[in-house]
Amino acid sequence: MKKFMNSADDFLKESLQGFGAAHEDIVSCYYDPNFITRSSPTKDGKVALISGGGSGHEPMHGGLVGHGMLDAACPGFVFSSPTPDQMLAASEKVDSGAGVLFIVKNYSGDVMNFEMAAEMMSGPNASVLTNDDVAVEDSSFTTGRRGVAATVLVEKIVGSLAESGGSLQECKALGDKVNTNSGSMGVAFSSCTVPAAGKPTFELGADEMEFGVGIHGEPGRRRDKVKSAQEITNELLEAIIEDLKPENNEDILLFVNGMGGTPLTELYLIYDNAKKLLDGKNIKIARSLVGNYCTSLEMQGASITLTKLDQELVKHWDSAVHTAAMRWGM
Amino acid sequence: MKKFMNSADDFLKESLQGFGAAHEDIVSCYYDPNFITRSSPTKDGKVALISGGGSGHEPMHGGLVGHGMLDAACPGFVFSSPTPDQMLAASEKVDSGAGVLFIVKNYSGDVMNFEMAAEMMSGPNASVLTNDDVAVEDSSFTTGRRGVAATVLVEKIVGSLAESGGSLQECKALGDKVNTNSGSMGVAFSSCTVPAAGKPTFELGADEMEFGVGIHGEPGRRRDKVKSAQEITNELLEAIIEDLKPENNEDILLFVNGMGGTPLTELYLIYDNAKKLLDGKNIKIARSLVGNYCTSLEMQGASITLTKLDQELVKHWDSAVHTAAMRWGM
Repeated sequence: MKKFMNSADDFLKESLQGFGAAHEDIVSCYYDPNFITRSSPTKDGKVALISGGGSGHEPMHGGLVGHGMLDAACPGFVFSSPTPDQMLAASEKVDSGAGVLFIVKNYSGDVMNFEMAAEMMSGPNASVLTNDDVAVEDSSFTTGRRGVAATVLVEKIVGSLAESGGSLQECKALGDKVNTNSGSMGVAFSSCTVPAAGKPTFELGADEMEFGVGIHGEPGRRRDKVKSAQEITNELLEAIIEDLKPENNEDILLFVNGMGGTPLTELYLIYDNAKKLLDGKNIKIARSLVGNYCTSLEMQGASITLTKLDQELVKHWDSAVHTAAMRWGM
Repeated sequence: MKKFMNSADDFLKESLQGFGAAHEDIVSCYYDPNFITRSSPTKDGKVALISGGGSGHEPMHGGLVGHGMLDAACPGFVFSSPTPDQMLAASEKVDSGAGVLFIVKNYSGDVMNFEMAAEMMSGPNASVLTNDDVAVEDSSFTTGRRGVAATVLVEKIVGSLAESGGSLQECKALGDKVNTNSGSMGVAFSSCTVPAAGKPTFELGADEMEFGVGIHGEPGRRRDKVKSAQEITNELLEAIIEDLKPENNEDILLFVNGMGGTPLTELYLIYDNAKKLLDGKNIKIARSLVGNYCTSLEMQGASITLTKLDQELVKHWDSAVHTAAMRWGM
């Protein structure tokens, strides 16, 4: 295992310390229990958005804390769920009285721990559960579909509504809508290595890919020989389109996400190949996002997410955001 | 070789097409010869900034075209210099009469081709040559030191001066100053694979790193066993500090750059480890940048750049920028 680290035990803490120091104008990091908040307090009357999950998917979620997105993030150890005391401490810090909305990816451990935190809380709260991965039903750590890259889009769009004064129930409803409107699927060319494990999560042959891979290296639909980018892109898109059923001329957001070890050139090439297929189907790319946002450590791979848009979603997508990883309009 | 590609011949074109489509609000891409400009024309009387070089270092340079940075970028094939006709076509498109400043990394091919373009131009032009890599004198493709990640900082800082009306000579002088004030050094945990070559540029043992590696996989100071992040960070910083000689309490910009295949968690961990050493030497981190900006395809590795700051540099660093890869203040 080759990683920039000093010890598996200190990996998360040192990384958080660096993140907090590099972006002290945007975030504050707290330790024992670990959580990240905006550097400025939540406005009175604003719904507080909190997400979290195992580390290893950066910039999600810590890099998405800031104006227009999250109020706090709770990072667990790499690929391990955060504990309820992290959510409780974060909630206590950022709840300004309008309630807390938890944005939770559908993994059994995350779901259980966020539910436990919700039960222990005295104030009003609600949860949005993301499960956008169309690859498989049920998986190593999941009952039902996995929550993956669309979580980034949920955080952006609901973050905007919360910033503009949406109520807890309105924010939850919008988050559920973005999740329902989204479908994702990914492919891996390589595994990733959890620092504490010291060896790759799975093995792939020199000419193989895992088709429909999960963001922790969970198995997908099948192991296959590596194909051309256009073939891979087409198959990912067809699976998403079959699930999502966007209509002719419907506006969509096309999100090409890197798994951490894939260069931008290749992500843009996938974007080009995806555009060719979508153009052919008269599905209109109205907004887009390309980059490493929902990663799996150093995994080489990529996922595609489509989100069906309407005016409400576009308005909240376009609104100002100021986080470490996404910044526009201010 | 596992890459998202259809053929080595179409790799660059399809990637550029995707880049242009995903960011059509910021850039326009042109083909045969290949170059990228802002989507809106250069203001009359504004010095035009043009950079370029082999592809494979994305987001540098195409992702740095936009308000407050470059007016155009000329991408060569992967790790191959762009040709003079690319610079000439780009110059013709973006020169608004105030002259063209070329920002060129010190590689023999780039230097020769940019010089040739400059000679063929009728209008006023000048060049800034970056050579911030302190690892080695002379290298596979270089006489003198290599130009690496500080090129991103030169483009940001000079881009700001050009935007605010600086003359061609003022822009050149500021670019030279940023380069002189900067030192960089990198380390690789893995090689990278040029699409047209189909196999890794160099081989590294399972426990080895290339210390002082170049951004095309050129040899560095030595091959060594992988060490702890703190040891690697300390040695990179000591080499840069020995060269740059920042003084006690001098403000610096700390730039932790990923080579393409290194997750953000590890880059922030390096930042933390670097801060510990710099704090101990009373060198003040006044500004910072962390991320994959000057990459080497999918190489796992990182580099550190220090830039000595003064008020002029800080002002131009902080000013508004709107490119695909760097965006703030607007």
